Formats: sequence, structure tokens, C-alpha cells
Amino acid sequence: MRYEPGVMRLPMPPRALFLPVVLASVAASTLMSAPARAAGEPGAVDMLPILAGLVLILAGAKLGGTLFESFGQPAVLGELLAGVAIGNLGLFGIHVFEPLRSDVGISVLAQIGVLFLLFQVGLESDPKKMMAVGASSFLVALLGVAVPMVLGYFVSSWFFPAHNTLTHWFVGATLTATSVGITARVLSDLGRTGSKEGRIILGAAVIDDVMGLIVLAVVAGIIEAADRGAGFDPATVFWIVGKSVLFLAGAVIVGRWLARHGFRLATRLRGEGVLLSVALVFCFGLAFLAGRAGLAPIVGAFAAGLVLDEVHFLELRARHKETRTMRELLQPIATFLVPVFFVLMGIRVDVGAFAEPGVIGFAAALTLAAALGKQACSLGVLEKGCDRLAVGLGMIPRGEVGLIFAGIGATLTIAGERVVDGAVFSAVVVMVALTTLVTPPLLVWRLRKVDGRGAKG
Amino acid sequence: MRYEPGVMRLPMPPRALFLPVVLASVAASTLMSAPARAAGEPGAVDMLPILAGLVLILAGAKLGGTLFESFGQPAVLGELLAGVAIGNLGLFGIHVFEPLRSDVGISVLAQIGVLFLLFQVGLESDPKKMMAVGASSFLVALLGVAVPMVLGYFVSSWFFPAHNTLTHWFVGATLTATSVGITARVLSDLGRTGSKEGRIILGAAVIDDVMGLIVLAVVAGIIEAADRGAGFDPATVFWIVGKSVLFLAGAVIVGRWLARHGFRLATRLRGEGVLLSVALVFCFGLAFLAGRAGLAPIVGAFAAGLVLDEVHFLELRARHKETRTMRELLQPIATFLVPVFFVLMGIRVDVGAFAEPGVIGFAAALTLAAALGKQACSLGVLEKGCDRLAVGLGMIPRGEVGLIFAGIGATLTIAGERVVDGAVFSAVVVMVALTTLVTPPLLVWRLRKVDGRGAKG
Repeated sequence: MRYEPGVMRLPMPPRALFLPVVLASVAASTLMSAPARAAGEPGAVDMLPILAGLVLILAGAKLGGTLFESFGQPAVLGELLAGVAIGNLGLFGIHVFEPLRSDVGISVLAQIGVLFLLFQVGLESDPKKMMAVGASSFLVALLGVAVPMVLGYFVSSWFFPAHNTLTHWFVGATLTATSVGITARVLSDLGRTGSKEGRIILGAAVIDDVMGLIVLAVVAGIIEAADRGAGFDPATVFWIVGKSVLFLAGAVIVGRWLARHGFRLATRLRGEGVLLSVALVFCFGLAFLAGRAGLAPIVGAFAAGLVLDEVHFLELRARHKETRTMRELLQPIATFLVPVFFVLMGIRVDVGAFAEPGVIGFAAALTLAAALGKQACSLGVLEKGCDRLAVGLGMIPRGEVGLIFAGIGATLTIAGERVVDGAVFSAVVVMVALTTLVTPPLLVWRLRKVDGRGAKG
Repeated sequence: MRYEPGVMRLPMPPRALFLPVVLASVAASTLMSAPARAAGEPGAVDMLPILAGLVLILAGAKLGGTLFESFGQPAVLGELLAGVAIGNLGLFGIHVFEPLRSDVGISVLAQIGVLFLLFQVGLESDPKKMMAVGASSFLVALLGVAVPMVLGYFVSSWFFPAHNTLTHWFVGATLTATSVGITARVLSDLGRTGSKEGRIILGAAVIDDVMGLIVLAVVAGIIEAADRGAGFDPATVFWIVGKSVLFLAGAVIVGRWLARHGFRLATRLRGEGVLLSVALVFCFGLAFLAGRAGLAPIVGAFAAGLVLDEVHFLELRARHKETRTMRELLQPIATFLVPVFFVLMGIRVDVGAFAEPGVIGFAAALTLAAALGKQACSLGVLEKGCDRLAVGLGMIPRGEVGLIFAGIGATLTIAGERVVDGAVFSAVVVMVALTTLVTPPLLVWRLRKVDGRGAKG
């Protein structure tokens, strides 16, 4: 019988010699405190809090993900709740992690992470198949904007009858836009990105992002005009629309030109990683253009993924003897950065907001309006054999867009009264947190049930 | 004869239908300007300048890299010069890219990029083989700290005879620490990381980082004491040394414990990318501990790579059916982030500093002292059949550490006179820029010559 030593014990002897000698003896004499070291560098950033944050976030993501996967839940729910735990240790007197909530470095990594997620989802999406459900996507988006907005109006006027009518419409507007990150991740965790339901949801989320912006611009425009005592000028809306069209048409033209010619030109580039670098330039470029058009950058990253296809890479891959697919090249980057986004979303859930006086009832009603309102989406599904409830559940999450709308509302006044006051803002925060947290388990439950039925039938 | 359409034309029809319809028609109505969108989000970061910067940096890196590779130069030189070009368009009246120089988001991505580079280099380094040249590394480091410091002292006292003697020693101290990023990248570009010369340089760079910190603490301590009119108290140095030892011993213990037990525990984790996530936590964790010990975080990332070995991953890879090696998993992330570091280094080279009055002569002399001083390193090489000149050339680059030292000097005064004034600071900036830019071509020239001789002999 051969003796099999533990895998971990094998390589220790050389290290046991090396590390103490080189690191400890050598560093036996380090002399400066870290902050002093960062001084004087141009654009100096203290990396230590960011490194500590990354360790915490990545470890938390894997532990939370494992825990929830072992209960048959998607990893993303575990990542979100790990974040909620990290971000709310302040309730137990531990405030050391709270700076993570607003750390610029972590936030940038998270934002780039969600770009990679949507780029991947776009790459896996087939434009033809998405067009095939385009009409459904449009109807789903339309219903998903209109119904929650009306419900939000009624909830607001029920709780705050003394407020201005326009305020109620603004509260309704904060309920409109779906945040596609959560649903895209759940679909991806379950390998359902290409399903009929998945395609309808993804298309609808892109469309309702745009519709939400229209609603916001119109409502905010009317409020500003009313506050000035003037009438609302539709021309301003048309002007902004025109500007956005120009930008996006530019993005589409540049995107198609790059996909056609850029990758051919790129075959002349040398060095390691040309394929990935060109794809990254493409993704970030379209994300930038989408942002310039007033859309969320993730819409651009998704579009970049849709425009690109492995076919574009054939020549480049042959030239560089690159055997890995784009999916394989992107996966390690996504493994690093995507969890940063979801854990950070969890960290930013302020559990304290749930307990603010006067908030809890309104927040609960608003969350119900947000979740139930999106169930109207199921009426927009034209395809047969498509699970309508899954579509409705997939449209529930409201993310940063709802918070952004609420933030804009907080800057608007009407007759000297803030459109979105502290209580309403906290309620929107609670609504965003709850819709984000309930979607993964609900969607997983429904899609598994559909699968089970499909297997039986 | 079969008609072969251009690769790029094949997939256009579906896209030609899809994109204009979904994106343009849909977005035909976007309404907000981007900055409004960013408002109200907690920890809000305007991603658009960062996305534009990444497009510029990644495209510039590939174009510059290709250009220089076609001249037989390493890609890193092209990346640096692409950065210099981007960063100094201000000389031609184009100031739009200058905010990149101090953008926090780009800077964080760059810093994480250099961590990945050193982590990779550490993984490729064999601790036993590095120990085998440990004595040489130590001597090389010692000579490479002492000789440039003395030369710097003489240059400073020649140009500024009226300044205090301690000021001259401080200028000498700014010349001590090698910045290992450039050399590590050149060695990696040439596949020479594991060569005898490569191992001596890498070991020596780690050691001289520590020695540089000792020198700085001692010189700065003496200056501060002299400025107060007091004697220098060696006890403070010992205290800081003791603290650093404690931190680093902790890092080593935690590192070894994690390598042994962490990866075994990690086999219980589920989900995609467990292997990479655990390795990242390890790398960032040791980088953080190194930073806490007052060392550069890259020293910790290098140590993390050294401690880890594919052997640690066997069980985890088997458990997760991961067929890719750690090197293959890290490569896409490095492809994304490493060029950000080198292009940003180029962007931060202020060509204008070369032209400041009273700077150019001193800067030239200082650069010579920095470059020639490190040639003393070749005397420290004990091994036979090792190219001494290549070791000396590899030790030339001074990076952010020199700038950090100069920055600290700018905050010190002695008898009411700033230790590092504007002219000296600019000269240090020029010295860092020149030593960074000359190393890649010199090192490539020398290593190719050695190879040629080896092939002939």
C-alpha cells in the first residue's frame, strides 16, 4: 500500500524554509506605517481598505453562495444576504465595515462587474430569437411600467392624502423600471438565459429602462413647470428624445462598424490577449455611448454582447491560436467582479430604514404595489407555452434606478414641499431591497416548477 | 468554386433587423442626461469618464504594444509610451484626457492590475530555486541600495552645495528602491521569469523594497529629530521594525495556514469559480497584510504567488472539474487590468517636467546616478554563468516608491528649508520616468544577446 500524504502537506518543506527566511528576516525591518507610504503619489489611493473590502466581499460571496446553493437557492441570493450581513453589523455596534458602502474603488469594481454580467448575457442571447419575442417584450415592458405607476399613485394618495397629486405620480414613477441585473443573474445561474421567458424578460427590461426614463422626464418636467407656475413644454421632452436617438444611432452604427471591421483590423494586432482586449474595448465603448444617451451603461454592455458573435472572432482566434471561446475568456473576470456587485448591493441595504417611524406601513404597501403591479406583465406575453407567472416574477426587481428616481425627487419641490421627503425615500429604499431579495427565491421556485411540469407533460 | 463571404458579413442580417428596432426605436425616447442619472445613488460614481478612459487605455495599450513588438521590443514599452502620448496631449492644447491622471477608479484598477502581475510572477516562481540564489539576491539588493544612495548624495551636493547635508542623503534615499513591476513584466514578456537572472532580480527587488523603507525611516527620523533640534532616537526605528515583523510574521503564518487548510476547506464550497475566488482572497489578503506591515502590497501579492502551488489546487480542481490551471484562470484578468497599470504609469509621466528651468541638468545627473548606481549590483551576483549586466539593468527601474519618498521629503523641513523642493521633486519625477522607459529596451537587448551567445557557445 502506497502512503498518500495529504495534498496540503506535500509542498511545505521548501516553503517552510523559504518564506520565514526571505519574508520575515528581510521584512524583519519594515519601517513605515502604510498611510505614510501612500502620500505623495499622484492620484494616490489608499489601497488597504479596498483590499480588505475585496477579501471580505469575495469570501462572503462564496460562503453565502455555498450556503444558499445547498438549499437549492441561487448563489446570488447568498451573495446579497452576505452583503446585508456585512453592511448592517452596525446594528451590533460593529461599524468598521460601513465605509465599504460608499468606497469609490469598490463601487467602480462593482459597476464594471455588472457590465461583464450583462455583456455575457448579451453574448449568450441570440438576436434572432430575441426579435421573435420582441412584441411580447414590448407589451410586457409597457404593462410593467403603466400598472405599477398607477398602483403607486393610489398607495401614495391613500397614505398621504394631503400631498399634491403630482407627488403621487412621482412616487408611482419610482416603481416603473425593472433592474435586470438580478434576474439576468438568476437566469444565468439556472442556465435559462435562452429560454422563451428569459428572452422576453431581458428584452422587456431593456425597453422598460427606456420607458422609465421617459416617464421620469415627463413627470419631473411637469412638476418643475408647476413649481414655476408655468405650463409643461413638450418640446423639451422631444429635444432630449432627439439627442438620445442621435447618440444611440451613433452607438449602433459604431457598434456594427466595429463588429465588422474592428475585429478584422484587430487581426493585425500582436501580443497576448488581443481577442479579449478588443472585446473589452467594444463592451466598454458601447456602455459609454449608452450612458451618454442617458441610458444605463449596462444596456450598452448588453447590446455589445448581442452585436458580437463567435463568428466575429473566428479570424482573430485563428490568427492568435486562441482556443478558448469568448465565454471562457470572460468567465474568470466575471468570477472576480460580478460577486462584488451583488455583495455591494446587499451591503447598501440599510436594515435600519425598515424600522424608521411612519415608514413601515407605507413601505410595505409600496413593495406590494411594486411586486403585484409587475404581475400585469404576464398579460403581455403573446407566446403560447410560455410561463406567464415566471415573466411577471422576473420583472419584479427594482434596483439602483428606483433609488436614482427617488434621489431626483428629493431635489424637486412643488409649492415649497419636497416631492420625495425622508419617509418616502426610506420607503423606496425598503421597496428596492425587498423586491431585490424576494425575486431570486420566487423565480427559482417558479422556473423549477415549470421544468417539473415540462418533464411530466 | 465556393463563394466565401467575408467573415464579418455572415451574421449581419439578423442584427441588421434587430438592433435598429430594439435599440434605436426603443431608445428613440431616452430622456435624461447621464449626470442626472448618477445622482441620488449611494456611493454614486460617474462611470462615464472611467469607461471612456478604459476604452482609450486598452486600445492605446494594444496599438502601442503591437507597434513596439513589431520592432522586437516588449509590449510594455509600447504601453508606457501610449500612456505618455495620452497623458501629454496637453502640450498640443488637448486637455480632455488629463483628468485620467488622477481618476480614482482608473487608479484602483491599475493598482489591482499590478497585484495580478506580481501574483502571476510569484506563481511561476519556484521558492526552492529562488532560495538557491538567495545570497546573491541579498547582496544585489544591498549594493543596489548603498551605491545609488551615495551617488545621489554626491550629485545633490554638487548641484546644491548650500543645502544641508541631510537633504543630500534624502535625495540619495529616493534612488534606492527598485520598482519590480517593469522588470517582472519584461521578464514575463520574454518568458525569462524562471531564469537565474530573473530569480536574482525578483528576490533582490523584494529585499530592496524593505531596505529602502529602512533607509527612508532612518533618514526621515534623523531629519525630523534635527529639525526639532533633538538627537535621533534609534528606539523608534526598532519599534516600527518590531511592529512590521509582527505583521509580516502574521502574514506568513496566515498564508501558510490558508494554503494548507484554506484550500482543503474550500473544497466544500459550491458554485462556479471557487478555485479562482479562493486564490483571489488569498492574494488580496496577503497584499493587505504586506501593506499593513508598511511594505508595498505587491510584495504581498508576490509572496501569495510563491506560497501557492498547483499542488494546493489539485483537490479543489478535481472536486470542481476545473480543467484550467491557475495561470489560465488569471490570464484574462491580467489581460484586462495589467495594461491599465502600465498605460497609467505612462499617462502620469509629465513631459512638461523635463523642461522646467533648473531641473534638466540635475535630473540628468540624478538619472545617471540611479542607472549607473544599480550597476554595482552586478558585483553581488555569486553564481557562475549568470549575466551580471542583465541583473544590473533589471534593477534600474524606479517607480512609485521613488515618487512616494520624494513626496514625503516635500513634507519635511530642516531649519525652515524644505528637504525636497519643487526642482528636486521634478527631477525625481524625470528620473522615475527615464529609468522606467529605458529599462525595457536595455533589458531586452541584453537578454537576447545572452541567449544568442548561449546558442552559439
